[in-house]
Amino acid sequence: MSTPPIRLPAGVRDFLPRAAARRRSLAARVLDVFERWGYARIITPMFECADVLERGLGHDARAAAIRFVEPGSGEVVALRPDITPQVARVVATRLADVEGPIRLCYEGAVTRLAGERGQREILQAGIELIDAGDPGGDAEVLAVAAASLAASGLPETRLDVGHVAPARCVLAAAPDDNARDRITAALARKDRAGLRIAAAVLPDAIRPLAEALVGLWGPAETTLARAVALPWPAEVRAALDSLRAVLAGFADLADRPVPDLTIDLGDLRGFDYYTGVRFAGYAGGAPDAVLRGGRYDELIARYGRAARATGFAIDLEALAQAQRTAGLALPVTTAGVAVHGAGAAAFARELRAQGIRAVVAASAPTASWLRGAGFDSAALLDARELVRADETRRTLDTADVRALVKLLEENPCPS
Amino acid sequence: MSTPPIRLPAGVRDFLPRAAARRRSLAARVLDVFERWGYARIITPMFECADVLERGLGHDARAAAIRFVEPGSGEVVALRPDITPQVARVVATRLADVEGPIRLCYEGAVTRLAGERGQREILQAGIELIDAGDPGGDAEVLAVAAASLAASGLPETRLDVGHVAPARCVLAAAPDDNARDRITAALARKDRAGLRIAAAVLPDAIRPLAEALVGLWGPAETTLARAVALPWPAEVRAALDSLRAVLAGFADLADRPVPDLTIDLGDLRGFDYYTGVRFAGYAGGAPDAVLRGGRYDELIARYGRAARATGFAIDLEALAQAQRTAGLALPVTTAGVAVHGAGAAAFARELRAQGIRAVVAASAPTASWLRGAGFDSAALLDARELVRADETRRTLDTADVRALVKLLEENPCPS
Repeated sequence: MSTPPIRLPAGVRDFLPRAAARRRSLAARVLDVFERWGYARIITPMFECADVLERGLGHDARAAAIRFVEPGSGEVVALRPDITPQVARVVATRLADVEGPIRLCYEGAVTRLAGERGQREILQAGIELIDAGDPGGDAEVLAVAAASLAASGLPETRLDVGHVAPARCVLAAAPDDNARDRITAALARKDRAGLRIAAAVLPDAIRPLAEALVGLWGPAETTLARAVALPWPAEVRAALDSLRAVLAGFADLADRPVPDLTIDLGDLRGFDYYTGVRFAGYAGGAPDAVLRGGRYDELIARYGRAARATGFAIDLEALAQAQRTAGLALPVTTAGVAVHGAGAAAFARELRAQGIRAVVAASAPTASWLRGAGFDSAALLDARELVRADETRRTLDTADVRALVKLLEENPCPS
Repeated sequence: MSTPPIRLPAGVRDFLPRAAARRRSLAARVLDVFERWGYARIITPMFECADVLERGLGHDARAAAIRFVEPGSGEVVALRPDITPQVARVVATRLADVEGPIRLCYEGAVTRLAGERGQREILQAGIELIDAGDPGGDAEVLAVAAASLAASGLPETRLDVGHVAPARCVLAAAPDDNARDRITAALARKDRAGLRIAAAVLPDAIRPLAEALVGLWGPAETTLARAVALPWPAEVRAALDSLRAVLAGFADLADRPVPDLTIDLGDLRGFDYYTGVRFAGYAGGAPDAVLRGGRYDELIARYGRAARATGFAIDLEALAQAQRTAGLALPVTTAGVAVHGAGAAAFARELRAQGIRAVVAASAPTASWLRGAGFDSAALLDARELVRADETRRTLDTADVRALVKLLEENPCPS
């Protein structure tokens, strides 16, 4: 039998130094935003007992979870397809005695059987705000989402906000699942003609609302005004009032300049477990949403604690790819120094103590050497002497090297 | 059927904010050391095709790998029990055209069926130095290991260095696996009497070497001198000469003051795939080694590239537990500000822009609120006015709050 080739499973990948640096830098920036807003980081395990994890998963995420039998115990476990249910579990159990509001954040890999674009291992970061009601909680989470998108440095970022109430009101009036699926699909495509056909099965009072819903997207103020003008039942009116209050709270809390929001009341895709305001974040260069979030007031109760909650998760891989597509340079360039000759070890030590990357090397850095060392650029210092134009000489010190590294970083080699 | 309880699989755990902060801070410090020494970080996937991963695993690690069938492809995959084989694969494939020396580092969770102390998910960080021969490569990796231990802030850190050659020479003379196992076990226990019995089966020329081996541990210089005085065959003499050169190289490269090294030529535990110098790191408060490394010149060839290599992995969880045992305070305290009243949102925004953690809150922070917000301490600011003892008043600015946060961090609440 021939040896099978060296390969990776579909949907997982390695990140070489430059790609890894982009992802680590994005994660660090986003987590820094979360922490400034008072969200404390927790770490949860890569896999859990399948039945425990599934309590907190919506229909789609359950189908996406990879399960296997844990050999030690014989228990069925699942790789986490989402971190939110883990946070819900922690809040309901180990933090059961902590009063809200509780602010938590996380960062880590999740694994999905059929994620967006066929990918399976996704780097995710997110926040959860527990026991904060609307509109204040929703407004805060939206403001953190906007700050996170801004921290990515991506152009044309946009938050699109909605509320599940109008579409659920329409869908509740549909006679069966088949009709619901057709209405949902037409809403997602913003297909007026298709919706008119699908909505034919709805009661007379609801049909015009369904037909209006397909057009209820666009700039926040005007779209909300159009929505409010329709003859919705009382609970949808209350939801729209609440959405208006969230937008006002967002304008108060968000970083300046306050980003423009858009509204989309028809889109329900990917918002399985939300119960109120929901939102998605987009950025130039990313084909799909890079961030999804909203209110999920029923999730934590599945783990035994009645607590309202809202939050979002950001797809760091999608952000990184968007940065590349948008032509954004690597957020950090890594210049270093290769030191050679007598006293090289001591000089390298001195440089490292100043935070400068330094390697003791035998020869001048080549392009291949740079890649091996993970530097974007490097200079070989084989003497510790600085010669000035006027021929005065003095020993090179760490300040000189710091200036050199700065020069290298500002003039990186083309790659 | 009753609902199964909310539980975690054996050996995995959640880290709440303080525990997570300790682990993240340790990881950041250790990675900072790696990067200063010129090691570039890469990210590898949580699971791989089992046959590919197993090429690079020793006997123990193979037994510790959790395997399952990947539902999408039907392939058998394994959760990584170790990151070194993944780095070897990357070096042999995607970095095939990069000349050495290549310096790479990593950080991430690994999963093992029966790790030390029954744990299964282990947070690990490490470096790999590829295509650097001995003694220079070994000396550099030892120096980075010493710097990493120092960065942990732990007391009584110690590096214990050995070489596989003397013990392998003795074991090669044993008549069968059973005899080898008994000799290995007696060496590990430093059991002179047990070794004398186990060594009875060895040839006359080797028996006295085996009996000496059990005592070849202690301070580096004197232990090495005792080892060199014995009548070893030529290849072991060469190995001991090489070890002496590594120690000299370490003394040249290591941070000052140069840490004392100890030598142990008898211990072979946990050094499955090493081919030359090997070492372990210990720290006060940790019952077992917190770091293991050495030279593994045959590993990368299993992925198709003939390249020598050396490196080490550090167990961040063991370091974190040792920090707690040693009574080391959390490396970061997180003080924040709860802002209340008119203009709270704007003031919080200003503080965050200065890197201060700020939450808009309705009431004074209680101990429970602090835990929910992930702060060690916080102050409620409900006015932006600073009143001096002489009754002059002025508006509180971010510098005042920065001073306040510093005060809070230096005087944390007892917890």
